[in-house]
Amino acid sequence: MIHYTGTYTDHYQLTMAQAYFTKGYASHRAVFDYFFRKNPFEGGYAIFSGLEDLLQALETLCFTEDDIVFLKAQGFSAAFLDYLKSFQFRGNIYASLEGDLVFPTRPVLSVEANIIEAQVVETLILNILNYQTLIATKASRMRRSAGMRQLIDFGLRRAPGPGGYYASRAAYIGGFDATSNVCAGRDYGIPVSGTMSHAFVQSYDDEYQAFLEFSEIWPDACVLLVDTYDTLKSGLPNAIKVAKILETQGRQLKGIRLDSGDLAVLAKAARILFDEAGLNYVSIAASNQLDEYAIQALLEQQAPIDVFGVGTSLVTGEPDSALDGVYKLAFCHQKPRLKLSETKEKITLPCKKQVHRMITEDGSFWGADIVSLHDEVNPIKIHLPCDNQKTVSLKGLKQETVLHPVFKDGQRIHPPTSLKEIRAYSQSRLKQLPVAYHEFEAPRQYQVGLSEGLFEIQKELIKAYRQT
Amino acid sequence: MIHYTGTYTDHYQLTMAQAYFTKGYASHRAVFDYFFRKNPFEGGYAIFSGLEDLLQALETLCFTEDDIVFLKAQGFSAAFLDYLKSFQFRGNIYASLEGDLVFPTRPVLSVEANIIEAQVVETLILNILNYQTLIATKASRMRRSAGMRQLIDFGLRRAPGPGGYYASRAAYIGGFDATSNVCAGRDYGIPVSGTMSHAFVQSYDDEYQAFLEFSEIWPDACVLLVDTYDTLKSGLPNAIKVAKILETQGRQLKGIRLDSGDLAVLAKAARILFDEAGLNYVSIAASNQLDEYAIQALLEQQAPIDVFGVGTSLVTGEPDSALDGVYKLAFCHQKPRLKLSETKEKITLPCKKQVHRMITEDGSFWGADIVSLHDEVNPIKIHLPCDNQKTVSLKGLKQETVLHPVFKDGQRIHPPTSLKEIRAYSQSRLKQLPVAYHEFEAPRQYQVGLSEGLFEIQKELIKAYRQT
Repeated sequence: MIHYTGTYTDHYQLTMAQAYFTKGYASHRAVFDYFFRKNPFEGGYAIFSGLEDLLQALETLCFTEDDIVFLKAQGFSAAFLDYLKSFQFRGNIYASLEGDLVFPTRPVLSVEANIIEAQVVETLILNILNYQTLIATKASRMRRSAGMRQLIDFGLRRAPGPGGYYASRAAYIGGFDATSNVCAGRDYGIPVSGTMSHAFVQSYDDEYQAFLEFSEIWPDACVLLVDTYDTLKSGLPNAIKVAKILETQGRQLKGIRLDSGDLAVLAKAARILFDEAGLNYVSIAASNQLDEYAIQALLEQQAPIDVFGVGTSLVTGEPDSALDGVYKLAFCHQKPRLKLSETKEKITLPCKKQVHRMITEDGSFWGADIVSLHDEVNPIKIHLPCDNQKTVSLKGLKQETVLHPVFKDGQRIHPPTSLKEIRAYSQSRLKQLPVAYHEFEAPRQYQVGLSEGLFEIQKELIKAYRQT
Repeated sequence: MIHYTGTYTDHYQLTMAQAYFTKGYASHRAVFDYFFRKNPFEGGYAIFSGLEDLLQALETLCFTEDDIVFLKAQGFSAAFLDYLKSFQFRGNIYASLEGDLVFPTRPVLSVEANIIEAQVVETLILNILNYQTLIATKASRMRRSAGMRQLIDFGLRRAPGPGGYYASRAAYIGGFDATSNVCAGRDYGIPVSGTMSHAFVQSYDDEYQAFLEFSEIWPDACVLLVDTYDTLKSGLPNAIKVAKILETQGRQLKGIRLDSGDLAVLAKAARILFDEAGLNYVSIAASNQLDEYAIQALLEQQAPIDVFGVGTSLVTGEPDSALDGVYKLAFCHQKPRLKLSETKEKITLPCKKQVHRMITEDGSFWGADIVSLHDEVNPIKIHLPCDNQKTVSLKGLKQETVLHPVFKDGQRIHPPTSLKEIRAYSQSRLKQLPVAYHEFEAPRQYQVGLSEGLFEIQKELIKAYRQT
């Protein structure tokens, strides 16, 4: 959808890059980590999303002629612009698999490249991953509320411009079944779905006539919007009439949609009316300002709703608006690097690293990831970063490394993965996470600890920085 | 940036369109209105934004071969797909000027076209205009808080994917001075700006060395980030040292940036240190989770901050997430149309319409727009829609029509307008709006009323609908 070029970045990435370049650091290797500090929605996990889009963008990233002309006018040096003309991302990337569950403070993705390339791609990484991870996570919360019922993304009209295209993708990863967004369906293979609008009904003098004509054109995919005039007195009786006509043709009315009023009350009334008319196969869809809590409340009231259409809250990720993902330097000029902070959890993790997930015997997540040095094999103790004194033994647990090499020397080495596969993987990972971490209220907090090796290096570095 | 095609829409637009097409309504004219129901941010106005992008999209909108192939697989009829192959938007559009202030319930933009074209473009209109209008309005609130101080958009990294590109545009219209977003600067002519990141400082063994080298590369555009280690003990003293070196070369340190801690306290301390060192020209920039309220609070504390960098709250429009813009049918098959609702304000306005703004003698806004029938000249009375009994005389007020023809028979007739012109127009319109409407707390509510002619037609139609 989007063609990303090198200028899809913050201006300071390029001014810093020119400084690195001019000072002769262009070939110095650096390691940066992408991670976030807080689970979105006060939940117990996040779903990593956006990786495929990022890898595609990185494969072809370059500065176009227009970019170079513009940067020249901004005062960048001729020598640096010459360098940018042949810019490619030639580094390595280690990443969580797309769809995996990820947790605060541990690297979700690490970039190892020369410092200029690693710096220039920061904004692209944050822009793509922060948004899609937020939306996939939001979607998974609605999936939890909706159980086996259908969830359809109706968000494009209220989406943040073309962000909506990627929201549809992330929503599918997070567990939605379909989208109204046709171009996302076209490009990503997401099932597309939709009903009819109030305007369609209004465009006729008569609601029944509108329903009838629509059913003639779409006899096998006819979902009627019943609340344009009066749901109980007009919309439902007219829908039943049309269903009966379809039956004479050996067809079935697919469903109706409620888009206003008390959805629980109306859905119950609709179910009774349809069932009494021998139309128990007609499904009931509901929309109108839904989110995970509204869906939960409707189902607690036993509302017989089969399909939920969700728009604004899905594609904007309200009330969170953004994932707080950051990109921090961990290694540069042959030395480990960290950023100090008054707040202990905000001190960053130095060095090139690996992340290990603890798995119990029955294959479910034990409840902790360990961040280690990249070449440390099977750490045997965790240090919890907020508590120097606390270490936990890991005996008897299986370990899975969760950062995978996906880019090597600028070549993609992780095969393209279809959205369907990503979604299936994500659903399987959610099943491995014990239910306490899925709760909306006070979910259990997944632990992220440091291996012995990383813990010691971080301690030394903090000491050294504080002495200077 | 984006190439919009016909499938940038909701699936139901196309299923409805096929029904219209098959039933022989393809040439029937319809009028749809785009409007919103509630000012964002509980404010007193919204800034209309996104029109130029919309018009550009409509000029070239078509269904590509890929679109047609995909829709064929979705079960659309061969005859309808043939129609879509030569689809163009051939209708008329009447719109508020981009950057104008717009208010709830009145048409912001009206589409008059055959019903298929008018229906298919709904999602595109809502997607582009809802988001940019939200962000421009949010930006204008920060402009109000910041007074004459500089405002820079730092949002791309936390933006909703490529929505960030359009957020930068809308922020500029709403009163921001610059953006960190390089490609938005390249394409829209927005000044680009940036400083340095923590990673730059961390990549050196020594903060002073980092500052010094950056100042050598960017001697005239050097803004130093001073909070990587310790703002007061390290960052500011190092910045002063570098400023003194620059002075020996006849240059001036441009500024410093604070990105953590108590920004008011640190800015005051920085100002004193610089002034005592004879460096009163060094500007102070601040960032870190700012919004209109945080900026206001900092300035109430007399924080000597010259530049505010704003990210997340700007590009996500939090806490609102989305403008509630809708697109409603007003005329079709030669008849006015409306949608009933239990809530009086939710009953839509029938017919092709015009909007008139009341202007006082001194050129400021009197505080009301009147929606009239399209050909009604200078309405002389307003009916307030929520109160049948209340009419207001308009004697002595000037009237300005605010919906302008921008598209005629599929041809754009409104000349392209530069972003700078749109921004200047918007700022001039904000000056015409009395200050009471700008308040964050309980702003005065701008009135939107109906002309005599529209009021009577709506009344008749409601009666007719309720009788059936």
